[in-house]
Formats: sequence, structure tokens, C-alpha cells
Amino acid sequence: MDAARSPFAPSSFPDLPEINGVRLAACAAGVRYKGRLDLMLADFAPGTVAAGVMTKSTMAGAPVVWNREALRNGSARALVVNAGNANVFTGKRGQAAVRKTVSAICDAMACNPDEVFVCSTGTIGEYLLEDRITAKISDLVTNLSGAAWKDAAHAIMTTDTYPKGASRTVSVGGVEVTLTGIAKGSGMIAPDMATMLAYVMTDASITREAAQALIAAGADKSFNAITVDSDTSTSDTLLLFATGAAGNDQMSDISSDHAQAFAAALDDLLIDLAHQVVKDGEGAQKFIEITVSGAQDDGAARRIGLAIGNSPLVKTAIAGEDANWGRIVMAVGKSGERADRDKLDIAIGGVQITRNGEPVDGYDEAPVTEHMRGRNIAVAVDVGIGDGSATVWTCDLTHGYIDINADYRT
Amino acid sequence: MDAARSPFAPSSFPDLPEINGVRLAACAAGVRYKGRLDLMLADFAPGTVAAGVMTKSTMAGAPVVWNREALRNGSARALVVNAGNANVFTGKRGQAAVRKTVSAICDAMACNPDEVFVCSTGTIGEYLLEDRITAKISDLVTNLSGAAWKDAAHAIMTTDTYPKGASRTVSVGGVEVTLTGIAKGSGMIAPDMATMLAYVMTDASITREAAQALIAAGADKSFNAITVDSDTSTSDTLLLFATGAAGNDQMSDISSDHAQAFAAALDDLLIDLAHQVVKDGEGAQKFIEITVSGAQDDGAARRIGLAIGNSPLVKTAIAGEDANWGRIVMAVGKSGERADRDKLDIAIGGVQITRNGEPVDGYDEAPVTEHMRGRNIAVAVDVGIGDGSATVWTCDLTHGYIDINADYRT
Repeated sequence: MDAARSPFAPSSFPDLPEINGVRLAACAAGVRYKGRLDLMLADFAPGTVAAGVMTKSTMAGAPVVWNREALRNGSARALVVNAGNANVFTGKRGQAAVRKTVSAICDAMACNPDEVFVCSTGTIGEYLLEDRITAKISDLVTNLSGAAWKDAAHAIMTTDTYPKGASRTVSVGGVEVTLTGIAKGSGMIAPDMATMLAYVMTDASITREAAQALIAAGADKSFNAITVDSDTSTSDTLLLFATGAAGNDQMSDISSDHAQAFAAALDDLLIDLAHQVVKDGEGAQKFIEITVSGAQDDGAARRIGLAIGNSPLVKTAIAGEDANWGRIVMAVGKSGERADRDKLDIAIGGVQITRNGEPVDGYDEAPVTEHMRGRNIAVAVDVGIGDGSATVWTCDLTHGYIDINADYRT
Repeated sequence: MDAARSPFAPSSFPDLPEINGVRLAACAAGVRYKGRLDLMLADFAPGTVAAGVMTKSTMAGAPVVWNREALRNGSARALVVNAGNANVFTGKRGQAAVRKTVSAICDAMACNPDEVFVCSTGTIGEYLLEDRITAKISDLVTNLSGAAWKDAAHAIMTTDTYPKGASRTVSVGGVEVTLTGIAKGSGMIAPDMATMLAYVMTDASITREAAQALIAAGADKSFNAITVDSDTSTSDTLLLFATGAAGNDQMSDISSDHAQAFAAALDDLLIDLAHQVVKDGEGAQKFIEITVSGAQDDGAARRIGLAIGNSPLVKTAIAGEDANWGRIVMAVGKSGERADRDKLDIAIGGVQITRNGEPVDGYDEAPVTEHMRGRNIAVAVDVGIGDGSATVWTCDLTHGYIDINADYRT
């Protein structure tokens, strides 16, 4: 588990602005890990709106089930997250652990159960010792601060090699609005352990329905367009909390100019966080952007992109800096989506390799091989059917992935 | 490419019986590889019936397209297979290479083009130098022999570390019928290079329609139930050739006792060959049998089994001899098929680990860990929905897979 730090890790955690109405605290609760932050609490001002999207796994954990219910109400006063144990496949005891945690939060913070969101990430199938969490709540409440982004981002890490955060500001009808987000995840991304979690806090004023529509659309362009290993977590959770403290006119119509400006900033922030997750993908040495065009529709383009991004043969070739574009042909072919073999165009690093279903006459591999030696790899594919397009992001498949995952629990 | 020989490799190639009406020859044509057998020819007696199934990839190679057409006629006089170049994504030149090869065979063997089957396996996207093949046909025809199974199995290998063959005999209405098959494949199985190819020759007398129905059904239970790396080849081909020389009453009704007896032997042979492919999976150190029950139907059970068998996290855990059954829960959850979280039962090596959606009370991991140290791993999952069941087979994901695939072409 002493995996090397990702080559994409930033030299330091970004300086993230406070969000009016949001306070955070983190501590070492010893849920599983020893001697590191593994528990965070966020406190939201009354009136904070909550929206979010969660894993589609049929084996979703007790916290995911709880949050789905809490989202029906759509207002939030608290978020509590632990790392080290996912509280997944833990039956009635797992559900009770969530209820006991929520109850302790309600007592400490004077709020209602359906305003409390709970996330857990880590090993599947072990009972969560919730008393290690509840024992720390009073301390966490005492230490709440608007500035604790870095500690919070640290506390939710599992196999991550660096904490992930980003921020954006945008003018909404002349009022400056701020969005700040943190995320974790590095395997079981598409994610047992590296479960993707991401939280965005904003001072924007927005209705629950509009917030839900924008976060769902944003997830499709960001966290639903990345893959590390094709495995889908039982705990994936993306939540948006909007305090309304910025004082903008409340956004309710997502087609309005105000909402569109906010959505653009939200999407940009989500893509930034999603890229950080891929760049910390288990064993990742290369960041790969795959652009697909000419598909039947945008959904088909994304599925083709993910077929390429999930292919172990494509990912090992890139790890080996081998411009083996034949494997890209293979991946397009297996995607299940329409593609015209005789119109397939492939480019790597901006160099056209195939055109109309054949290698380009006089194709010179040298500049492509040079591109493959870099950290950032660009693959572009046109499948010659329609106007659908999409971009997805992934990382290479290296010995590091095997090292990390062949012996995770010990 | 000097990958270690699979630990499952048999000490020697099996002694396979001749099939009346089938003659074989192999040679070193230098299509890509130097100094090894890379080209095989099979000659079939007049009246031989052909049936088969091929890759569903939309990027299927020129040989696959040719064979699909040839199967419409359903009679076979010759099969020619080269290794080293897949003749995929080679446009009109690739189609011309197939036609020139067929034409040379027809000249040498006095048969019709639609009685000639052509397969190529190896690198995608490089033009096949068919003159290296056609230059050898006369020699091959001269050397045809009923006994050349081992050489033929060698000539179709790519990254395989051992040649694969098996045989069965069965009584069909009192007449002894023999089936002998060879196969290749070790990556891009579910396969750019390790493309699965398999050929079964039999002296049984059977109609084309019955042969097609039986080979399709057999493929579902065997080659469609194995995965090495979730990548699907552009060249996968399974062909059955039946000479009729055994003299049994021709089988036409697949529900007849005769056809059922033949089908049982065929299925058993196909599963044997499929297991040999998985056991030579790139980097494989463990052979994994995954049995799924309680699914909505048999198709759903197979898809759940393949979700488990394709999961990099499950496969790396098994490589690390870690009984991390939480990842099996994850894989069931991502399969997209119905499963009842609160009824999920998981057993490894015959030891029940979960029951009704929770770890078994007092679960002792020690015997499971002991089982994980062996070569053969048995995983059983019941998803608690219905009566559907299936068995799939895969191998672990090891450093060897990365070594082989990160630098395949050089």
C-alpha cells in the first residue's frame, strides 16, 4: 500500500476560498487507518439545498441508500464521511451504523435526520465500527472552520496519493458566486476501495430541482466520462450543497442565462476534479484524453470512448509507449455501437494514422512514438456514422496497478 | 515476447486421432515470425460440411468477412490459416490478399472459391504479404497428412505458450464418430493479437443446418463463456468441418438422440479447448471457474459471471492470493443484471463466505486463503432472483500480462 505518489500530483494543495454558510472539520478516528485523518464533518447553514447523483450498482452500500432518501427532501445541514470502511454488504448492522451516526450528528448539531448525509469509502464487507465515528463528533463540531478544505480532502482519501480540490468563481446576474469542491478516488473508477466521492459546496442560491438537473448533467460530462479500471464502485457519490448566502436571485430555470453561467462554472469544476481522480488512478503514469466523433449520438460516442478507455490492451500499449493503434480499432469494434470500418479515422497526438479505414499512405510512426513518451496522450477517433461526439479520460495500466491491487487488504 | 510458459502447459501435445477425410500440413512461411511454423493448410474430402461462428466486432477483418460468405454455401474443401498478421483494418488491399490466397488454393487443389476458408491472426493494421503464403501452397499440398495435428496447432499460435488440441469419440447410432480440434488464443480473449481461433474436424455425417445449430450452441457454453481481458478480437473464429466419412445416418434433427449424443461430445471438446485457451491466458498463474446461480435467466447468469471474470480488481486480488470477496460483490453490482443484495451468497473453494447479503457468522478466512494459494480457484455466487445459471472461466491478472502487452509489436 506504499504506492508511489502519482507523477501528476501537484506540489501543494490549492488555496481554496471559503464558502459562506459552510464549515468543515476533520480528525483521525481510527476507523481502519492509524495515525491519519479519516473522518470529516461539514456543517451547512439552515436553508442549504442538496442535490446529487449516486452509483447505479445493485450492491450499493447502506450510506448510498440513506443519501437517496435524504435527497428527496433536498435540504442539508450536515455531511459526514469516513475512509477505510465502505459500510457495503453489511446488512442490517450496516443500516444501523448509519442510523446511529446520523442520530449522534442530530444530537450534536440540532438538526433533523433527513438533513444529514453520510458517506463511507474503503473495504467492502466488513462491519463499520460506528462508535469510532460517534466518539469524535463533539470534537469535530467544536473545530468547525470555513477554511479546512485541505484536511477534509485528506480525510476522505483511500489509495489516493494526493488530496484533490478545486474552486471556481462566476458572476450570476452581477453577483459573484463561488464553488469549491473536493474529491477522492483512484481505483474502482468506472471504481472496492477507491470509490469515487466528490462534494461541491457553493454559496449560490438555487432551487433543489435546478440544482439536481445541473449536477446530473455535469456528472455526465465529468465523473461519468472517466475510467481507471472499468470497475464500478458500490459507493460512488457526487453531492452539491448550495447555501444561498451569495444573495443572487434564486436560480430555478436551468435554461436562464444565470443558470447557464453557473452551470458552465460547475461543469468546469467537475471536470477539473474528475481529471484529478484519473491522474491519481492506481499506478497511473499517463493521462489519456480520448475524443470520439462521428458517432450515432453523444451517448454512443461516450460508450465508444469508454470501450477504448477500458481496454486493457489499449492501456498496456500506452503504458509501454507503443503506438499500437490496431488495439484502438479492436476497442471500437467491440463497443457494440455503430461504426463504419471503411470510414474509421484515428489520430494520436494530432498525427493522422488512419483515414477511411486504412493506414494513411506513408504514415510515419516517429512523431507518434515521440508523443507516446510524454505524460499526456491524446487519442482522436471518428467512426464515420453521424454527428455524435464525446470526450473521455483515463490512465494507462501499469505494474503499479497490479502492485496496489494484488494485496489491498493486508 | 519471451513470456514464461504457462504453469498449466501440458508436458506434451496430446496424441490426436486422424479424421477420415481430413489431411493437414504446416510450414514456416515467414509472414511475420522467423524460424517457426506460421502457416497451416487443411484439405477436406468432397462433401465436407462447414459451420461456424465468428466475432461480432464491427471492425472484423477481411478473412472474417470472407468466411461469413463461404458459410452460406456450407461446404468446405480447404482451410488456410496464418499467424503473425491478422489482415484486419487493411481495406481493399486486405480483401485482395484474401482473394489471391483463395485463388492460389483453388488452382492447387482444384476446388471452388466458396469452399475455401481463410483465417489470419496477429497484428492489426499492417498489410498482409500474401505472396509469402501463396509461395508455400504447393509445398503444403505435397505434404498433406492425416496426422499433422501438432504442427497445425503450432502454426496458428501467436502469444500462446503451448499448442492446444483435444479429441473425443462418441457412438452415434452404433457408429463410432471422432471429433478432433485445435485452438489458439491467449489475450484479446472476450481477444489484437491473441485472437481466438478454433477448428473442429469430425468424420460425422450431419447436415449443414444441424451442424450450424450445434456449433452455435456449443460456442455459447465454451468460447463465449471465457474471458482473459474483456477485449474482443476482430478475428475470433470457430469452425466445424464434418466429412461424413464415419458413415453414420446423417444427422438432421438436432433434438434426435443421435444428434444429442454428438452434441454432448462436441460441447465437451469445445469446453476442453476453451479451458486450454484460458489456461494459456497472457500472464495467467491461476485458472478461475465462476459459477453463477439464482439469476433471472441463463443469459443474465453468464453476464454476471463475465462481469466478475472481467473485473481487474477481482483478477488482481486472485493474483495476490487475497480472498477479497468484497470485490465480487462489487462486480455483481456493476453487471447491470438483476441481483438481490439481501440474498447474495458467495462461496470460494466451497467455503460459504456470505449468506443472505451478509458475511456468514463466524466466517473463518483461513481455509479460503489456503484455497487461494492453489492453481485452480472456484468462485460460486447465487444472486437470489430466479433459476438462471451459468459457468464462466477466466484467469488472474498479473505482472506477466503487463509485460506481454506493454510492448507487443517490438
